[in-house]
Amino acid sequence: MNEEALRVTYRLRTGSEGAGQRARTLALEQSIEMPVEAVTDERVLREVVAQVDGVVPQPDGSALAQLALSAESIDGDAGQLLNMLFGNSSLHGDVEVAAVEVPPAMAAAFGGPALGIEGIRKLARAPRRALTCTALKPIGSTVADLARMTGVFADAGIDVIKDDHGWSARTSASFEQRVTACQREVERANRGRSGQTLYAPALSGPFEAQRRQVHFARDHGVQAMLVTPMIAGVANFHALRHDFREIAFLAHPALAGNQMAPEALLGTLFRVFGADAVIFPNHGGRFSYSRATCQRIATCLREPRPGLRPALPVPAGGMSVERVPEIVADYGVDSMLLVGGSLLMARDQLAARSREFVEAVAMASGAMTA
Amino acid sequence: MNEEALRVTYRLRTGSEGAGQRARTLALEQSIEMPVEAVTDERVLREVVAQVDGVVPQPDGSALAQLALSAESIDGDAGQLLNMLFGNSSLHGDVEVAAVEVPPAMAAAFGGPALGIEGIRKLARAPRRALTCTALKPIGSTVADLARMTGVFADAGIDVIKDDHGWSARTSASFEQRVTACQREVERANRGRSGQTLYAPALSGPFEAQRRQVHFARDHGVQAMLVTPMIAGVANFHALRHDFREIAFLAHPALAGNQMAPEALLGTLFRVFGADAVIFPNHGGRFSYSRATCQRIATCLREPRPGLRPALPVPAGGMSVERVPEIVADYGVDSMLLVGGSLLMARDQLAARSREFVEAVAMASGAMTA
Repeated sequence: MNEEALRVTYRLRTGSEGAGQRARTLALEQSIEMPVEAVTDERVLREVVAQVDGVVPQPDGSALAQLALSAESIDGDAGQLLNMLFGNSSLHGDVEVAAVEVPPAMAAAFGGPALGIEGIRKLARAPRRALTCTALKPIGSTVADLARMTGVFADAGIDVIKDDHGWSARTSASFEQRVTACQREVERANRGRSGQTLYAPALSGPFEAQRRQVHFARDHGVQAMLVTPMIAGVANFHALRHDFREIAFLAHPALAGNQMAPEALLGTLFRVFGADAVIFPNHGGRFSYSRATCQRIATCLREPRPGLRPALPVPAGGMSVERVPEIVADYGVDSMLLVGGSLLMARDQLAARSREFVEAVAMASGAMTA
Repeated sequence: MNEEALRVTYRLRTGSEGAGQRARTLALEQSIEMPVEAVTDERVLREVVAQVDGVVPQPDGSALAQLALSAESIDGDAGQLLNMLFGNSSLHGDVEVAAVEVPPAMAAAFGGPALGIEGIRKLARAPRRALTCTALKPIGSTVADLARMTGVFADAGIDVIKDDHGWSARTSASFEQRVTACQREVERANRGRSGQTLYAPALSGPFEAQRRQVHFARDHGVQAMLVTPMIAGVANFHALRHDFREIAFLAHPALAGNQMAPEALLGTLFRVFGADAVIFPNHGGRFSYSRATCQRIATCLREPRPGLRPALPVPAGGMSVERVPEIVADYGVDSMLLVGGSLLMARDQLAARSREFVEAVAMASGAMTA
């Protein structure tokens, strides 16, 4: 296996079976799916079968196995990468993906974010501070309610207003209605001021519907989209990113599961596949990620990598305005804070609460960069 | 919530938190994603918020929570169904999908299999016996090797010869090369005999590439395709099924994970979304599904449902010719046995071993229907 292999660390919880044997079985399962004794092609044995580079027992009784997967079997296809990484083994109960190392040439071929952190800053005209994001909720609202909410958020100066990821294409407010009404509110609020609020509608449905949605939105002035790669199919997300290089793609973690380490899937792979910003559940909210996990996600999204722009970490999931100083201190200014339902709890004080959010982030950013 | 709701049973492993409270939190997470106190629209509270219909403690300390999810939020979109079913909650460690009940109108709108068991029997001209299936392995083989293998399998009378799901579109044998060479072998073997072997090449890449692949394959006489819905995106699989109603779609479980009960995802949902046959790991092979789980998958695929054709269960994953009588006894004749790597272990005895497989299935089927 050469330096262009995908290097993966799996956590094995083998019980009685030896970890070394389990790692070798895993290497076959995630490559040729047959016993080596049955392989007659020498090249396949040499270049296609996944290799076990090491197995390290851990204090908790699990073991970390390092495998090298052939770049040839991945073939520049994001879906095929997930397939070779974890397709069959995801059905097993005793193995998780702990870390993924994408070699530079493979990462460059996927291309990563087209805009990245700097591109989103330019669109929002928000240099050198943490950004703010909120969500249009609840699904089922009328388009009039959504437009009103969008206007309030945009007037407060929130940088990105995204659809809840549960919005489908039709129903109470269709994709086209949302885009028309919400983008109009955003553009009204943006006139004559320096900061530019972005509206990010949610893509849904099969690929061709999603592409039509991006076309429609772009034609209406929209510059950002919310996408759920694990539902859309990562290869389709990657294809959209390729076709619409001027759009900022915010990736949502829905259906990412808990069998692949979030830093590997949401951090490393979502960035490689082209997410400009990645939403993930911050620690201490409704979800169970630890602070260390969240820090690792942010690191994987932002660490310098040759030929790959950094992507914006978007901690979310039950966050509140009260926690802004702590979150900005955690992630620094190259991040975007997503506060959703907690703002709406203010009900008729929504405008004031939204301004508090924007001001708290500006103040905490100032403290960071002073 | 009316009778058109999607009824879902979740298994909660709540630990110290009460299961009743956890079920209510789950209902919000999988619908409006915000506290009910912040909702101002009465219709949303009445019709869109998911409802908890019951919570039943289990002997093992877990609890089964029955929820009703609004059909409106699913909107006839397979991806959106998974999103509402498990999008955010898949990130949690304390909840699994145990069962899914798709209401008849929703199932009929998705449409289910276009061919189903009877359609596959017609294509293969294989009435009233269990069917046989094998896989072209290993990835990385030359197209000449694949064609030779296909010829041997087809001459032995195996009903379906599928690509390994790890085949990507390009590399050592491209999709187009495989289709051209393997379909030619199958057609040569099929001439002048009653049984008709089907070649099922594997789809990969983004949706548009997959659609081009189906067009190319169909133009070359191919009547069956292998698809991995969880990698392609279920909405895209559903779109392909809709566009190509004469093709038999074999669904592969890669990336299905272990957080959703296999009978719910591979059984109920893959059938509703349109799989004509569903491959799943049989008990006692390389995977850890129990016999009871496998039986439930087969039941969900085949049980009579108004307006929905039955789909063919394809037990697989480390099966051998020796186990044929037991597997046919387990699943009956409305099933297809997939034996892959174990045949290839025969190496230069591949033809004889393949015939043994076909004969063993015919004999076991005869015993069942005698």
